[in-house]
Amino acid sequence: MASTIAILIFDDAEELDFVGPWEVFTMSNEVRDHANDPAQKDRVLTVSQHGGEVRCAKGMRVIADHSFADCPPVDVLLIPGGRGTRREVENHAMLAWIAKTADGCTWITSVCTGSLLLIESGPAAGKRVTTHWGFVDQLMARGKATVLKNIRYVRDGNIVTAAGVSAGIDMALWLVGQMHGVAHARNTQKAMEYDPAPPYAAEA
Amino acid sequence: MASTIAILIFDDAEELDFVGPWEVFTMSNEVRDHANDPAQKDRVLTVSQHGGEVRCAKGMRVIADHSFADCPPVDVLLIPGGRGTRREVENHAMLAWIAKTADGCTWITSVCTGSLLLIESGPAAGKRVTTHWGFVDQLMARGKATVLKNIRYVRDGNIVTAAGVSAGIDMALWLVGQMHGVAHARNTQKAMEYDPAPPYAAEA
Repeated sequence: MASTIAILIFDDAEELDFVGPWEVFTMSNEVRDHANDPAQKDRVLTVSQHGGEVRCAKGMRVIADHSFADCPPVDVLLIPGGRGTRREVENHAMLAWIAKTADGCTWITSVCTGSLLLIESGPAAGKRVTTHWGFVDQLMARGKATVLKNIRYVRDGNIVTAAGVSAGIDMALWLVGQMHGVAHARNTQKAMEYDPAPPYAAEA
Repeated sequence: MASTIAILIFDDAEELDFVGPWEVFTMSNEVRDHANDPAQKDRVLTVSQHGGEVRCAKGMRVIADHSFADCPPVDVLLIPGGRGTRREVENHAMLAWIAKTADGCTWITSVCTGSLLLIESGPAAGKRVTTHWGFVDQLMARGKATVLKNIRYVRDGNIVTAAGVSAGIDMALWLVGQMHGVAHARNTQKAMEYDPAPPYAAEA
């Protein structure tokens, strides 16, 4: 069954936080078992408050497909992190849109500090969540959710929150497995060669 | 020493092929040992033939920072893949720009099927290279380079070619290590939490 997957973007959203999952969800549409079956393909779109150009955290400029006003009904919502989350957490129109949209979603997800917006807008309040390792203490201090650390992503009901930046890719692959089955997720992973061999081990 | 890192984009370039390395290079500028030292920061930019909006392979629209006409001198060139490479390999203005730009570069790099453009424009002709696993046989059949498979990235002199999509992240982290040292590359990797635990092992 196909879903509409909306990726929320805003000024100073972290580039890889949302482009990693974007690649996973759109690659899923192209691997062999979906490529010839339009009914299986998810609709993947970007949405911002006003539509149009968004300037990301590291300076990349991306054009949102939709504004809040013209966004179609959403089945899966993904909220990236980036320093823009600290501004958007004070933006009542943003929080209200997230709350309203999440209400109709099958899956509600975030990457990195995007969990801050999911908590403050309501859907992840009181839930078990995670975030970027460098933001764990601050998010814990707010006291509005149970923040887990040293984990790539956390599922609590239909809320799935990923750790920092690259962890969004892991979470999105898991979600594709939930939506389309493990074999399909494995094919998607192979198509994007997400089988990393980074040259330097992460520090403890 | 700071470098100017130019990421070439074109219609139907694969999103994660270039946004992965973009994240690595720009995150490198923000980790603790560079954040307060502007002289250490690399200039990271996108460039397209005509500047302005580019529509990527999976439909994301990105605005290039520069056109060929106004691109500053480049130290590190990165060429992504995506189905657009099959059109661009016939674009003489594109191949000429790559050849001319590469001539002044310290490092000349590609991700995925971007190696096709690096070979056909000259810099990687006759070199040891790699590409997306699904394109290895086609690139071998052209007979213009030695194509290695089952490897994340290949260095031959100052030419560094990565395998498909996600492998560009591994290659970019290695390059940051070459430019700024291993400890700095390790800090960059940690800042972007590139310590994957994808839920499904890649198929053999």
